[in-house]
Amino acid sequence: MASETAATRPRSRRERPAKPALTRQGIINAGLEILSEEGLSKVTMRRIAGVLDTGHASLYVYVRDTEDLHAQILDAMLSAVPLDGTGSWRKRLKDLLAQYGEVLRNHPELARMALSTQPNGPHFTAIVELVLALLKEGGADDHSAAWGVDILLMLPTAMAVEHSVEVSPKREAERLSDMADRIQIADPQQYPNLARLGGELLSGDGPARSSWALDVVLDGILVRTAANRAQQADEGTP
Amino acid sequence: MASETAATRPRSRRERPAKPALTRQGIINAGLEILSEEGLSKVTMRRIAGVLDTGHASLYVYVRDTEDLHAQILDAMLSAVPLDGTGSWRKRLKDLLAQYGEVLRNHPELARMALSTQPNGPHFTAIVELVLALLKEGGADDHSAAWGVDILLMLPTAMAVEHSVEVSPKREAERLSDMADRIQIADPQQYPNLARLGGELLSGDGPARSSWALDVVLDGILVRTAANRAQQADEGTP
Repeated sequence: MASETAATRPRSRRERPAKPALTRQGIINAGLEILSEEGLSKVTMRRIAGVLDTGHASLYVYVRDTEDLHAQILDAMLSAVPLDGTGSWRKRLKDLLAQYGEVLRNHPELARMALSTQPNGPHFTAIVELVLALLKEGGADDHSAAWGVDILLMLPTAMAVEHSVEVSPKREAERLSDMADRIQIADPQQYPNLARLGGELLSGDGPARSSWALDVVLDGILVRTAANRAQQADEGTP
Repeated sequence: MASETAATRPRSRRERPAKPALTRQGIINAGLEILSEEGLSKVTMRRIAGVLDTGHASLYVYVRDTEDLHAQILDAMLSAVPLDGTGSWRKRLKDLLAQYGEVLRNHPELARMALSTQPNGPHFTAIVELVLALLKEGGADDHSAAWGVDILLMLPTAMAVEHSVEVSPKREAERLSDMADRIQIADPQQYPNLARLGGELLSGDGPARSSWALDVVLDGILVRTAANRAQQADEGTP
């Protein structure tokens, strides 16, 4: 509310080129552009307001804070995940989660964020809905599907952070070599299982292990479903 | 290599109190102290060298780089995880992983690091050995145990990052309220499963969900073991 002089007086709207109307999609597009050029740390409310030539206050109609801005941008990136897979329910579910993981692996900053803040928008909602539908198709009961979806989305996220493109080949090689060292120097008296399983612990590449991990969780969800049904039968509830 | 005057000339060793010998444990202890007072970002090789009144080069005998320093410090903190639980193999394994998660939850910076860099030292090695031993006791085959240990350690780590003490109660409330909003506004035509499972998706607290997730993975590992055995029987291999 500083006093206005002729020099600082804003030009009237008529003298300026028309600004495009502020929209949620416009904010996200501006964020995506900054993200691709300068990284997530530069995607701030202030910066977006500058790019869109608007005030902070106008943005808050669409975005709560910087974290929500990032959550909406991640959601926009999830538009790359196809929802129309083919094959068995298990194949479609694993393909879906692999492609979810692929988006996160290409944006490790967003993957790290996704561990503590869920993506916010229609694409993530559609993915959650599809995971629930496929679990139901596979025979999971409601409780196991509802709790299982968290684990199924967490696994590709955590693996994206673990094997993100940021990790240099050198660092990745060191990681494996550390593990190999630990196994090789493991005293078989003190660490009999580490010593015995050495080769197995290091076997398999990322995609093979991810696929195996998803099968383990899906199998586990179906075992929980069967246990719930057996318990309900015992208790005489349907 | 500045020129020395009488004022800046270092005192000879005889005039100074004897320095304690540099040890791996001494380096880690210095790191733990800096960590507890100033946070992980201040735990650097330079800082440790200063505290221990030694040169960089001497540290490299024990620690490869800052990341390795942090990995060794995390290992030292894992000494708080008791390895002598009681009860069934499943209870002991779940208790062990819950206590591993507890250490990580209290040190979210280290938890985030642990997703991409394994703790380096004897305590982590002993935990991995014990997980493998308990899986074997529970009936898991070698392959499923070797690959399963990664998932079992990843879950508490990812959950520690997700629900770390850094997340303020306000932020946690917002997270849940976002999810509740998403479910409530979900159009039952477009998102029938989200709409139907609303209550289940929000039910349960952190410990209940962690415990359930570990049971799911353990059940899944045993299903994989059974599948491997059936396949081997089909192929006539033992």
